[in-house]
Amino acid sequence: MNIELLIDQIKKKQSFLCVGLDVDLEKIPPHLLQEEDPIFAFNKAIIDATHTYAVAYKPNIAFYEAYGVKGWQALAKTIDYIDSIDKNLFTIADAKRGDIGNTASRYAKAFFEDLNFDSVTVAPYMGRDSVEPFLEFEGKFTILLGLTSNPGAADFELQKIDGKPLYMEVIEKSLTYKNSEQLMYVVGATKTSYLAEIRALIPNHFLLVPGVGAQGGSLSEVCEYGFTATIGLLVNSSRGILYASNKEDFAQAAAIEAQKLQLEMKSELEKRL
Amino acid sequence: MNIELLIDQIKKKQSFLCVGLDVDLEKIPPHLLQEEDPIFAFNKAIIDATHTYAVAYKPNIAFYEAYGVKGWQALAKTIDYIDSIDKNLFTIADAKRGDIGNTASRYAKAFFEDLNFDSVTVAPYMGRDSVEPFLEFEGKFTILLGLTSNPGAADFELQKIDGKPLYMEVIEKSLTYKNSEQLMYVVGATKTSYLAEIRALIPNHFLLVPGVGAQGGSLSEVCEYGFTATIGLLVNSSRGILYASNKEDFAQAAAIEAQKLQLEMKSELEKRL
Repeated sequence: MNIELLIDQIKKKQSFLCVGLDVDLEKIPPHLLQEEDPIFAFNKAIIDATHTYAVAYKPNIAFYEAYGVKGWQALAKTIDYIDSIDKNLFTIADAKRGDIGNTASRYAKAFFEDLNFDSVTVAPYMGRDSVEPFLEFEGKFTILLGLTSNPGAADFELQKIDGKPLYMEVIEKSLTYKNSEQLMYVVGATKTSYLAEIRALIPNHFLLVPGVGAQGGSLSEVCEYGFTATIGLLVNSSRGILYASNKEDFAQAAAIEAQKLQLEMKSELEKRL
Repeated sequence: MNIELLIDQIKKKQSFLCVGLDVDLEKIPPHLLQEEDPIFAFNKAIIDATHTYAVAYKPNIAFYEAYGVKGWQALAKTIDYIDSIDKNLFTIADAKRGDIGNTASRYAKAFFEDLNFDSVTVAPYMGRDSVEPFLEFEGKFTILLGLTSNPGAADFELQKIDGKPLYMEVIEKSLTYKNSEQLMYVVGATKTSYLAEIRALIPNHFLLVPGVGAQGGSLSEVCEYGFTATIGLLVNSSRGILYASNKEDFAQAAAIEAQKLQLEMKSELEKRL
C-alpha cells in the first residue's frame, strides 16, 4: 500500500473511517459462539457489513493473543478475508510493540510479512533503534504512539522536557529516523487542543485518531485541527460499531453506525477541503 | 510464584541467572530443522542443559510471533515444559506490551493465565492505566521498562523532566501505582553508573538486567551497585548461552556457558552478601 492509494480510497469512499476489530467473545452475539471459529465469523460479518463505509481495519492484537493459537488463526483468516474483499483496504495491526534491533525486526516480519498487514502501531519509549527496524519495510507504515487518549497520558507523555511535552519530543525526534516518511502517529481525539501544535510540526503525516465516540472525542474538532491538504486522518471507531447490537441483527446495526460516521466524514470533507 | 520463593531458589542454586530464549531458526543447529517442532526441540535441549544453573527463563515473544501459529504452539509447549522440569523456575514473557484498560487486561490474561507465565515485561509510555491492569493479577509480576541497554535509550529515557531523567520519573511514578510491590524493573547492564541512583529510589524491588555478556555489561559492576539485602537481581543472558555452539554439541556448550555465569554469580553472592 502506498499513501497515494490510501488518499484515493478516502476520496472515493468519502470516508476516513477505520473500524477497530476488538473482538471480545463475551460481547459478541451469543448465537455466534456455536460457530467453529466465532472470532472470524464475527469479523467476517462486520467486514461484510461495513467495508463500503470504511477505508481501514484495525485488529487490536491483544484480543487475539488472549485466545492463544486459535486467536492467531482467527487473526490470519481475518486479514486474508479483508484482502479478498478489497485489496485496497488499509490494515493496521494495533500491537503497540516496542523492542530493539533484531527483536523489532521479528515483530515487523510477523506483522508485515507473515500476516501481511499494511501497518503496525509501535511504542516509542526505547528510541530510534526500536523504531527504525519497522521503517525498513518498503510500502509498510509504522504508526508511532504520540499522544494517547487515556488518562495515563498525563503520567509521561504530557510531562515536559525543556518546556516541550514528551509526545512532541517523540514526534520531533522520530522525524530524524531513517525512512520517517513511512511514519504515521497515534493522536487521541480527546486531546484536540493539542492537534494544532502537532500539525505545526508534522503538516503532512497521517494521524490515526482513536477516541471518537465511546471515549467522547468530537469528529468535527478533530477535522478542524487535524486535516491536511491530503486529508491526513484515519479516525477509528471500535465498540460503537462492533457492539451496536448483540442480537442476530448485529451486522446490520454495525453497518448503520459505520454509515452514520461515514456520512459525518463526508460532510466534514465537503465542508473543509 | 511469590518473591520469597524466588529468593530461596537463588540462594539454593547460588545463581540469579535468567536464560533468554530468543530462538532464531537461522541460528540453531541445522540438524534440529528436521524435527517436527524445531523451536521446541531447541528450547527443550537448552532447558535440560541449563536448568540447574538458572532460576529463570525469558522467552522473547517476538521470536515466537514471527513464526505465527506454530510459534505460539512452541511457546506454550516451552512454558509447560519449564513447569514440568521444575515448577519453581521463574518465567518471564519478554513482550514489552503497553496498552490501556481492557486491552492491557487481555494481554495480561494471555500471558499470566493462558500461557501461565510468572511475569511479563511492560512498556510505561502510556502511564498508569496501561500498567495497573497487569498488577491486578495476584502472584504475578510486572516488569516495567526502566532504563534499557540500547543506544536509543538516549532519545527519551535519558531526557530530563524537571532535572530528572524520564526513566527515574517512570520508576518513581510507578511506585504510586496500585499493587506496586508486584513491580520489577528492566535496567540495562551497560548503564551500571545509573544503578546506584536507581537503588536509592527502589532499595528492594527486583531488577531484570539484560546486556551482560554479548552487549558488554560487567556482572561484577552490576552486583556492586545492584544487589539488595535480598539479592534483588535477575541477570539475563541469551545469545551467549543459546548459540555457544551451533553443532550437535550445542546443549553441552550452553551448559558450560550457563555454569560459567553461575559460578561467577556464586562468587559475587559470597563476596558481597
